Amino acid sequence: MGVPSDDPAQHKFLEARTFTESLCQNLEIEDFVVQSHPDVSPPKWHLAHTTWFFEKFVLEFINPNYTPFNPSYNVLFNSYYKSLGPHWKQSERGHLSRPTVKEILTYRKEITQKVIDVLQKHSGHPEYQNLLLNLEIGINHEQQHQELLLMDIKRNFSLSISNIQYSKGSAKISEHIPQKYIELPGGEYSIGTNQKSPFRFDNETPKHKTYLNGSRISNRLVTNSDFAEFIDTGGYKNYSYWQSVGWDLIQKEDLSSPLYWVKKENDWYEKSLYGIQKLDPNAPVSHVSHFEAEAFAEWSGKRLPTEEEWEIASQTHGNSNGQFCDSRDLSPTSSLSENCISNLFGTLWEWTSSSYSAYPGYRRPKGAIGEYNAKFMSGQYVLRGGSFATPRSHFRNTYRNFYYPHQRWMFSGIRLAEDL
Amino acid sequence: MGVPSDDPAQHKFLEARTFTESLCQNLEIEDFVVQSHPDVSPPKWHLAHTTWFFEKFVLEFINPNYTPFNPSYNVLFNSYYKSLGPHWKQSERGHLSRPTVKEILTYRKEITQKVIDVLQKHSGHPEYQNLLLNLEIGINHEQQHQELLLMDIKRNFSLSISNIQYSKGSAKISEHIPQKYIELPGGEYSIGTNQKSPFRFDNETPKHKTYLNGSRISNRLVTNSDFAEFIDTGGYKNYSYWQSVGWDLIQKEDLSSPLYWVKKENDWYEKSLYGIQKLDPNAPVSHVSHFEAEAFAEWSGKRLPTEEEWEIASQTHGNSNGQFCDSRDLSPTSSLSENCISNLFGTLWEWTSSSYSAYPGYRRPKGAIGEYNAKFMSGQYVLRGGSFATPRSHFRNTYRNFYYPHQRWMFSGIRLAEDL
Amino acid sequence: MGVPSDDPAQHKFLEARTFTESLCQNLEIEDFVVQSHPDVSPPKWHLAHTTWFFEKFVLEFINPNYTPFNPSYNVLFNSYYKSLGPHWKQSERGHLSRPTVKEILTYRKEITQKVIDVLQKHSGHPEYQNLLLNLEIGINHEQQHQELLLMDIKRNFSLSISNIQYSKGSAKISEHIPQKYIELPGGEYSIGTNQKSPFRFDNETPKHKTYLNGSRISNRLVTNSDFAEFIDTGGYKNYSYWQSVGWDLIQKEDLSSPLYWVKKENDWYEKSLYGIQKLDPNAPVSHVSHFEAEAFAEWSGKRLPTEEEWEIASQTHGNSNGQFCDSRDLSPTSSLSENCISNLFGTLWEWTSSSYSAYPGYRRPKGAIGEYNAKFMSGQYVLRGGSFATPRSHFRNTYRNFYYPHQRWMFSGIRLAEDL
Amino acid sequence: MGVPSDDPAQHKFLEARTFTESLCQNLEIEDFVVQSHPDVSPPKWHLAHTTWFFEKFVLEFINPNYTPFNPSYNVLFNSYYKSLGPHWKQSERGHLSRPTVKEILTYRKEITQKVIDVLQKHSGHPEYQNLLLNLEIGINHEQQHQELLLMDIKRNFSLSISNIQYSKGSAKISEHIPQKYIELPGGEYSIGTNQKSPFRFDNETPKHKTYLNGSRISNRLVTNSDFAEFIDTGGYKNYSYWQSVGWDLIQKEDLSSPLYWVKKENDWYEKSLYGIQKLDPNAPVSHVSHFEAEAFAEWSGKRLPTEEEWEIASQTHGNSNGQFCDSRDLSPTSSLSENCISNLFGTLWEWTSSSYSAYPGYRRPKGAIGEYNAKFMSGQYVLRGGSFATPRSHFRNTYRNFYYPHQRWMFSGIRLAEDL
Repeated sequence: MGVPSDDPAQHKFLEARTFTESLCQNLEIEDFVVQSHPDVSPPKWHLAHTTWFFEKFVLEFINPNYTPFNPSYNVLFNSYYKSLGPHWKQSERGHLSRPTVKEILTYRKEITQKVIDVLQKHSGHPEYQNLLLNLEIGINHEQQHQELLLMDIKRNFSLSISNIQYSKGSAKISEHIPQKYIELPGGEYSIGTNQKSPFRFDNETPKHKTYLNGSRISNRLVTNSDFAEFIDTGGYKNYSYWQSVGWDLIQKEDLSSPLYWVKKENDWYEKSLYGIQKLDPNAPVSHVSHFEAEAFAEWSGKRLPTEEEWEIASQTHGNSNGQFCDSRDLSPTSSLSENCISNLFGTLWEWTSSSYSAYPGYRRPKGAIGEYNAKFMSGQYVLRGGSFATPRSHFRNTYRNFYYPHQRWMFSGIRLAEDL
Repeated sequence: MGVPSDDPAQHKFLEARTFTESLCQNLEIEDFVVQSHPDVSPPKWHLAHTTWFFEKFVLEFINPNYTPFNPSYNVLFNSYYKSLGPHWKQSERGHLSRPTVKEILTYRKEITQKVIDVLQKHSGHPEYQNLLLNLEIGINHEQQHQELLLMDIKRNFSLSISNIQYSKGSAKISEHIPQKYIELPGGEYSIGTNQKSPFRFDNETPKHKTYLNGSRISNRLVTNSDFAEFIDTGGYKNYSYWQSVGWDLIQKEDLSSPLYWVKKENDWYEKSLYGIQKLDPNAPVSHVSHFEAEAFAEWSGKRLPTEEEWEIASQTHGNSNGQFCDSRDLSPTSSLSENCISNLFGTLWEWTSSSYSAYPGYRRPKGAIGEYNAKFMSGQYVLRGGSFATPRSHFRNTYRNFYYPHQRWMFSGIRLAEDL
Repeated sequence: MGVPSDDPAQHKFLEARTFTESLCQNLEIEDFVVQSHPDVSPPKWHLAHTTWFFEKFVLEFINPNYTPFNPSYNVLFNSYYKSLGPHWKQSERGHLSRPTVKEILTYRKEITQKVIDVLQKHSGHPEYQNLLLNLEIGINHEQQHQELLLMDIKRNFSLSISNIQYSKGSAKISEHIPQKYIELPGGEYSIGTNQKSPFRFDNETPKHKTYLNGSRISNRLVTNSDFAEFIDTGGYKNYSYWQSVGWDLIQKEDLSSPLYWVKKENDWYEKSLYGIQKLDPNAPVSHVSHFEAEAFAEWSGKRLPTEEEWEIASQTHGNSNGQFCDSRDLSPTSSLSENCISNLFGTLWEWTSSSYSAYPGYRRPKGAIGEYNAKFMSGQYVLRGGSFATPRSHFRNTYRNFYYPHQRWMFSGIRLAEDL
Repeated sequence: MGVPSDDPAQHKFLEARTFTESLCQNLEIEDFVVQSHPDVSPPKWHLAHTTWFFEKFVLEFINPNYTPFNPSYNVLFNSYYKSLGPHWKQSERGHLSRPTVKEILTYRKEITQKVIDVLQKHSGHPEYQNLLLNLEIGINHEQQHQELLLMDIKRNFSLSISNIQYSKGSAKISEHIPQKYIELPGGEYSIGTNQKSPFRFDNETPKHKTYLNGSRISNRLVTNSDFAEFIDTGGYKNYSYWQSVGWDLIQKEDLSSPLYWVKKENDWYEKSLYGIQKLDPNAPVSHVSHFEAEAFAEWSGKRLPTEEEWEIASQTHGNSNGQFCDSRDLSPTSSLSENCISNLFGTLWEWTSSSYSAYPGYRRPKGAIGEYNAKFMSGQYVLRGGSFATPRSHFRNTYRNFYYPHQRWMFSGIRLAEDL
């Protein structure tokens, strides 16, 4: 399958499939199996689930009489699509040793080939355009799981007493970026998109107007050094910076630093995909919850930007040469962008103050696709900008990522804003 | 104390204090003690907590050497103000038999008198204007607890096997209101307020601009009859109407109707403050969660309004003669308002699709008052419009109420909207 | 009802009924309502449940057409008799304000009178002897709830920040009793009973043989002073004294002393039914769990006695003039019994090392009575000897009390034993 | 290492080590990693933990300056010995992918060789006899984990939707055994042991007298057919057979059959180490909890035997040719033993009515070995007789196994008894 296809759709598909597998190439068999937290999935589950997605939405879509590769996979590798039948309990994905990694790689290979066959043989089919659309959803879906794979492997490895390196090598050194605030003048703007191509998720639509009351947004991400100062001045001990539920959580779980920070003899280290490394003071702080991001902002006398502010800022100050996973970097790095906002695209997903909800004019799609994004619009917050683990081709500045406010195993960071 | 004062501030204060007590006049001693759910507080706790609030923010404010009525009350009747010291665990307020109701009524009487004394003796004090502001917060706070008292008494009584009537009498008959949708044209609007008088909470400020993309809002609340149809057509059985967390909740708690509905031999009844009553088909459905409200809207092919839409609609279509607690009604009633939106003010709090968050330009106040509203801006949704249990003088159309999406013991209802 | 009857059965019945009510005479109405822990019941529930028991097993037994006082009481005041229909959830007894204390006292009065009427009118009835047997079970049942009332009131009051005294007065001073061990020679013994009169519970039967391998039992209970030494020498910090589940529990709940002990400026106090009192060093330690009792014994180089050892010791060394509730003492007191084992009867229930199980030859009774004792024979441990809160007439040396090993709100104490 | 040693201790040691590994020979790498339930451990953990045990109690015992193979293993592979330092949380053993199976097998190989070296080089050491004793404990410990490996692999595989066979082949057919009850006459007996060689666990000591009140014990185990009748006649629906906590558990977990039973179109199947097989009506019922065993006995009008009865019966009616794991059978089989009690030794562990506690005269050993058995003597029940998964050389009729009454993933069965 290493041979790229001439056809752009096929090429993109094969590229995504190959890249997923390449992310796992240094794993031991045992590493594919474990699920160290209910939010995490075993790497082998990601390999199989993304494959099942193509089986359902491409192979079965074009051929209603399609015989599934293995009927039990419809249960095991359905994540949460109630309209597609029962699914395995999410928190117990790590209870299963079978199918083996080898069986899943065989499954991947066979389905990849079948998808290619379908694409080559059905170009005249009346549903071919819809088939291509589903293919594109499947590719974008697989790209999301590429980032999840890195998040989940990092989480699994972080538990270990020994220092496991997902990759040899080390993080790039971050630049010091002097703090500036960029003005976003008050007035009417448009955000969101109506474009169909290149691909957009339903939750990015429709394009609509919004009114900005005038604010300023930081030219850089909050750094490890900034966040260490928050800790040192009692940030985790003073309720006045915190939301009530966030404060209760940090008491209950006894939290006092970002997820992967470790203190050794007065120095801060962090667990990274390169193993345990000394904290780079200029690197952007990562693996913080929405609660921590908001508390930090309150302590700073600032606030988080809204997602509207973020997108409007990106329309004029974005730098498309961000740190994405195409760079093969495995740690977020601050780098100065003269004349624009640094690290706005890539590097880290930036928490916004906006809860994740439907844009004006949005309607939940019918069928299984209606379960993709629309059923998660309660209790979550929007993150913007992509991360070093996001594929470049997967990203656009209308992209809306979302997590619960307590979560912090994703590659999340903080950018501050303030009212005029 | 029954004698009203000539001074408007004192008059308003005495009125609020007296009204709270009047809400409890038909309770048995035992009814003051129980806490049937962690969200609920025992009625005697409400009586004491509102008193403690005046003790802290009026008596202690003007006299730093003030000797508390009983030092243990600082713990027992502090709800959750971390800046004011330790507080009793909220879910265990019903574990305490002491102080007795009699002791708490004595506490009320003494603090009420001392507040009056302070108001009469300190009119020349340099902090007198701030004292009046704190008094007004205290009055508004007590009014909120008047509604909470009715909510909590209803919740406590609803558990009983026997049919407890908080009040003799019965609900008014609701009118049938033909469905219409009122257009809210797209464009710039202002919402929120900068007014200081009459009193506003901090979360209603500042006044700011917003852009509406054009929509329509229903002229009436969703009725019991509407909601029964949702149930009858499988509304609680079809995941496609529900948010994922909402669906998980109704499975786990086996929910299939609003909180107080009871089915007897194919007829729906509801537990009300008048006891168990047959469901009035034209009355507005109440005691629904945000999940239920959104699922109903999805089933209807509509959506919930945003809080901006609600407030903009209220600016031109509001009817200030709503059903508030001044009417002494104890059940929500639909009544047709010709030429305007029915039941927009009073009757029931209307769920919006807006998560509860800070307005542009809002800053969390310093000190204990910063814990009043600002620390609850995570994970909750805004309700607008007041209810039959809200004092008329407590309400204004900029008022923002907020609850968690699973909660339904408050007097919540549903109004639909749709995009143009 | 204050007038005692000439008939012994009626006299005993009236005495038990009156005594229960006398235990509540100093309570405020509010004190009757609360349930501060799932193991505890509100005092008004005890008053009603014991009444329901007579309604079921006396009034309904003799008259199958009996009309219940209030049908809802069959649910509310059935504790856990599955064979008698559904029952209210035990942990939510404190969620109910109704029926009121006054209504329950009326219920008591009416049922008491009806029982007397039945006893007087049915002496010729063919089931009269069985009626008397059920009456006796009901009286013994009510006596058990007299002790539970004191346990539960103490638990409820103990939560209070203020110092509530169930009774004015103070504990008697305990005597210092020099430690001796009494030999129990190896050999065959009989324990248990086949007697029908005076009343015995089914779990005390049948009389059967057991073999003792030879041991010694302490002449006194473990004192507060003994237990303080256990604490001071790290008893709660050293896993080597503890059972694994006990150790996990004290870590999880952060336990470091008996239930009602309070340390103030280096001195130990304890919450008692007389209010907070300084710890009497010679008084027996009380409110310890089985885990604590065993850990103390291990630390002492001794062990707990088996229930067989306890009963055999009691056959020859018991002192029937123990401290029972007839003395109106409300705190356990050590008092030297020359020539016999001190405080063996009354004072405190003594943990044994025996798990609660059926005696050889025991069969679970049919019907509701089979739920009285036999369904609790899993996971509990036997306590022997009665306490200062047990009615004297309720006790005999074959009596088997039982609690879960983590529980400590009952009047439990420790007596040590050792092998020869 | 395949070459057996001439020295009996070394031979036995090597035999145990080799047998453990042979149990895993058909596993996929993935199968070594998962932990499908908190009670279960990943197979690779068993391989490492048993090795760590020899490292601690043999290598470190004889050489206090011993350098551990890997210091982190002291945490990871310490099960629960508080006296040997911190240990990994039991319920999260399956969260770790590392060390890999290969690394653990290297660990095993190296420690096995070092133990052999120590045995060969230290025969003149003053502590040599104690070394041999620790070696024997280690071998017995490893044998216990051989049975645990089979229990845990079965539990892990049972979750799978597909039919995983730990072994090809199938269960032997069970014989029908006519029901008889064997009399155990009343009188004094001795049970337990003082023997040091062959090896006994501390909890089997000391030998002591007990008195039997006279009973009968069944000549056979309860069969699948017997248990199916219990189910068919409403055994799981009638509270009158159940202990209160057992009843609550089956309601909460919705249990209605033994652990691995599966109903397909009116026929019962069971998941076995051979995969899913049709239920053999004459085979002994297995994987029942103590609650289920007691409920079945109550339904039968019988009871479970005490552990004393079991051991006394075994002294005269035991058949040492039982079904142990040396037979390589992987499923329990009933086979008639003329003139003695069938399947008393091996086949299945038999629940007794005895809670697990210390024998008269037993003292908890000092140090880490005191944590082996003595700290689990609370809340558990004794099982006797060994199972088809127990090594023959590990078993003796004084052996006391113990589990919590709700557990059923071990190879547990039921034998009935009755009073004379």
